[in-house]
Amino acid sequence: MADTPSAKKAKLEPKYELLYWPAIPGRGEYVRLALEAAGVPYKDTTNESKEGISGLVGLISRDNVTASDEAPVLCPPILRVPDSPILLSQTPNILLYLGDHEGLAPTDDNKYLVHQYTLTALDLGDEAHNAHHPVGVGLYYEDQKPEALRFAKEFRGSRIPKFFGFFDKVIKYNKSKYPESKYLVGEQISYADTTVWQVVDGVNHAFPKKVGELKEEKGFEELFGWYEGLKGEEWLKSYLESKRRLPYALGIFRHYEELDVDQ
Amino acid sequence: MADTPSAKKAKLEPKYELLYWPAIPGRGEYVRLALEAAGVPYKDTTNESKEGISGLVGLISRDNVTASDEAPVLCPPILRVPDSPILLSQTPNILLYLGDHEGLAPTDDNKYLVHQYTLTALDLGDEAHNAHHPVGVGLYYEDQKPEALRFAKEFRGSRIPKFFGFFDKVIKYNKSKYPESKYLVGEQISYADTTVWQVVDGVNHAFPKKVGELKEEKGFEELFGWYEGLKGEEWLKSYLESKRRLPYALGIFRHYEELDVDQ
Repeated sequence: MADTPSAKKAKLEPKYELLYWPAIPGRGEYVRLALEAAGVPYKDTTNESKEGISGLVGLISRDNVTASDEAPVLCPPILRVPDSPILLSQTPNILLYLGDHEGLAPTDDNKYLVHQYTLTALDLGDEAHNAHHPVGVGLYYEDQKPEALRFAKEFRGSRIPKFFGFFDKVIKYNKSKYPESKYLVGEQISYADTTVWQVVDGVNHAFPKKVGELKEEKGFEELFGWYEGLKGEEWLKSYLESKRRLPYALGIFRHYEELDVDQ
Repeated sequence: MADTPSAKKAKLEPKYELLYWPAIPGRGEYVRLALEAAGVPYKDTTNESKEGISGLVGLISRDNVTASDEAPVLCPPILRVPDSPILLSQTPNILLYLGDHEGLAPTDDNKYLVHQYTLTALDLGDEAHNAHHPVGVGLYYEDQKPEALRFAKEFRGSRIPKFFGFFDKVIKYNKSKYPESKYLVGEQISYADTTVWQVVDGVNHAFPKKVGELKEEKGFEELFGWYEGLKGEEWLKSYLESKRRLPYALGIFRHYEELDVDQ
């Protein structure tokens, strides 16, 4: 039976509103990927309308907090839940909520593994950001380049291999418990999969030479096998081809050739 | 009725085992404070026995992950739940678990506010760490001092006031909803209170001059009123006086005079 017009509309009516800086994937991308994996329609306000940004800036600079039912938020990403005073912020917290409400996490104790792996991936993402902004988020990259070169050397040499090695083990461990699983925790996709995927993709974008070397030297077959497997899933393929997927730009994951090689 | 000897023993039998680097408060302190607030007995393994550290190092360097029921962990703090294969890591994840299992978080949607504020406080704690380690965790402070001086200037001038101002608003907001409350979310103590408290205490330890100036210039009466109020609670007073509370040392919050003043 064909959908009635109102059923079609209900399907497309945004269930959530994402507020994030426009024109970069950034930390908003972790939230977008979770929503895409869950197949939930959402409004990406600042990318869909020019006026969106003023709403976001108004929210994070709100001084009169007692006049609203919405709790204070420090910075985006922010997820608004329609018909509710809930205004979620902090990436892992938004993902926790979506895990609970959109079937993106197990309901048993494995849900803590999902959160743990997600937090670990986000730590790697934050360090990839600090590689081009080691001194301060308020300064330009060009004004902290010597510091960035030192940070990036440490990051390439010690941190990427450490984290990639960890996720390689995570996949081995889960396969030992669930031999048929294609995912990080248990047998179903979770927000750990979407988040680790985005961090691996982003680190590969920013440090392609280093990641290429690591593949050759260390293999990390489990990690890259899982990464390619997820990339081949229909929902992710069609998202990556859509306009909703923004190209990497001046956000967390930036490719500066000088940060990807020994000087 | 007096407790029988076995009931007494049950009360003191550790319910959890904390594994963290010995002799510093560090990120272990966020977990300790939550356990102390919940009144749950725990074993602080590396501080209670000299052999404890080898168990911790063994856990995080375990290569053969499929031989164990415990999932891989990247780094401490780690919380072991007795009689369970659960091995929790990542500070916010451990706190989430304790919130769910030890009454340290609301059961309604306010639990996401608790997690959000906690993550925000931990971000400030991480930045306080990066003030003395801006280039790499594998290097000594003395080997990254010029970078640290630049980072600390940004941190003092922009970041401490931003975060302290945010938590001041959070308390105003909660009071507007729960006028009698002494806590950050709703009317009961949560792991947001213990975590924000530790970060404010730690930043004040590391940057006493800056925090003194901010109190004079900006007030932040709500934040410091709440901070002193919590400090006066019986459980926290007796914990701070106990040997379980380790003095600040070479961990996250370090006092270097040169990082606390303009050069």
